[in-house]
Amino acid sequence: MLEDVTLTFGQYDLVLNAFSLVIAAFLGTFIYLIGMREQVAKPFRPALLVSAIVLAIAGYHYLRIYGSWEAAFVIDGDTATPSGEPFNNAYRYVDWFLTVPLLVLETIAVLGLAKATKSSLLRKLVPAAALMIALGYPGEITSDNGVRMIWGTLSTIPFLYMLYVLWTELGAALQTQSAVVRTKMRNLRLLLIGTWGVYPIAFLLPVFASEASAGLLVGREVGYALADVLAKALFGILIAGIAIQKTEELGLGSDIDLTEGRRETSNA
Amino acid sequence: MLEDVTLTFGQYDLVLNAFSLVIAAFLGTFIYLIGMREQVAKPFRPALLVSAIVLAIAGYHYLRIYGSWEAAFVIDGDTATPSGEPFNNAYRYVDWFLTVPLLVLETIAVLGLAKATKSSLLRKLVPAAALMIALGYPGEITSDNGVRMIWGTLSTIPFLYMLYVLWTELGAALQTQSAVVRTKMRNLRLLLIGTWGVYPIAFLLPVFASEASAGLLVGREVGYALADVLAKALFGILIAGIAIQKTEELGLGSDIDLTEGRRETSNA
Repeated sequence: MLEDVTLTFGQYDLVLNAFSLVIAAFLGTFIYLIGMREQVAKPFRPALLVSAIVLAIAGYHYLRIYGSWEAAFVIDGDTATPSGEPFNNAYRYVDWFLTVPLLVLETIAVLGLAKATKSSLLRKLVPAAALMIALGYPGEITSDNGVRMIWGTLSTIPFLYMLYVLWTELGAALQTQSAVVRTKMRNLRLLLIGTWGVYPIAFLLPVFASEASAGLLVGREVGYALADVLAKALFGILIAGIAIQKTEELGLGSDIDLTEGRRETSNA
Repeated sequence: MLEDVTLTFGQYDLVLNAFSLVIAAFLGTFIYLIGMREQVAKPFRPALLVSAIVLAIAGYHYLRIYGSWEAAFVIDGDTATPSGEPFNNAYRYVDWFLTVPLLVLETIAVLGLAKATKSSLLRKLVPAAALMIALGYPGEITSDNGVRMIWGTLSTIPFLYMLYVLWTELGAALQTQSAVVRTKMRNLRLLLIGTWGVYPIAFLLPVFASEASAGLLVGREVGYALADVLAKALFGILIAGIAIQKTEELGLGSDIDLTEGRRETSNA
């Protein structure tokens, strides 16, 4: 197991601090998204709400991950040796199982698409997202690299399908959006690909690393932490940006309220 | 007792992760229901609030159940042996005693029925729900299978009475609803029957199992966890779906806001 290595206290502490950073970033973004709902037009508020839910669920899991990391090591001077209680990686999978379909949902919800287009996209993307995570889990918990590769490959199939739908069907739906929204959505999609790319790399680490090492474990955990900040907190902020832009395009933005105070009542 | 068995660490961990999944799912659904209240017309908001309360109460109990499971076993390498502190099943009964009457209440509240019809349904269903749980408890804590069967049978009487009221009196009240709402309510009723069916099966496990086993204990706890996610979180999401549908039927939906921003004040 990758977790059965002795760390220096500095390595142990770096990971703990990275987890703590994630918790703080998620808390802040959660409050931002909850609070910004009233600044955007009603049809876009559920997207911000779902994004806030993602951060709440992921924040809960990072609190558990933080506690599990603490319990997994015994500190003695400058070394952190495994305590015998394994670091619980399953929290990540339970988290992704719930949050990845929700990330897809918020991406579609913020666009204010026609009901039929929205339903069609969600019916394809949400089950594929859940399937992708569920197929990854058996590969993660095995110590057999062959088994890991099989489940990893199976998990890639729904992932590629999602990319296909995001680039073809969502691409077509984006044609009805303004140029600014189209650009923001393209950035969002690139962020999604960029950060989701971290997860398969971490998944495959045990296959390519000939033996467990402290550097590998610390690298994986810090890598996951940074990827999660980008894929969930930054992602949520970009979703809010799209909702603000679309609100302004509808003439319901708060900028208008500044110059024409009376309009404010109509979108309170 | 079913709990007095030695588990593998994997079995122990599976149950702990299932409890954690429930906590995360309840947290997410709680935020969803609280946040979605402003997206539905005022008469349907109390139903979403009651549904959120169910998730808060049940989430609190799952935090206790999680802690009780941790305290009930001592981990040593790959085995989890009973610590001597019994796993506290009573948390479930306290939870159901509070949440099951509330689940019935939210089901009726979301329909926006005439006051007399609503009162009549609640006067029958809410006490029956509380009685059903209260009669089950003495059967759960006994180690005598005969006593268990007697209380189980007594508990079934209010349960059957509830089914009768839900199919006859509620069925009649549904005739005033739109076709879409009627379909959604039928799905809700089926979910209720389907998930509530899990509880008597778990209740009767000690009667039919000749001896306690790890598989039985793990199966019961994971089964309860999944049934609770369906019966409380999915149930709440379906309740919100009915409220959104009924809001749209009243011409107060957020879709209208997109094209006629000024309508928004009427349901802010």
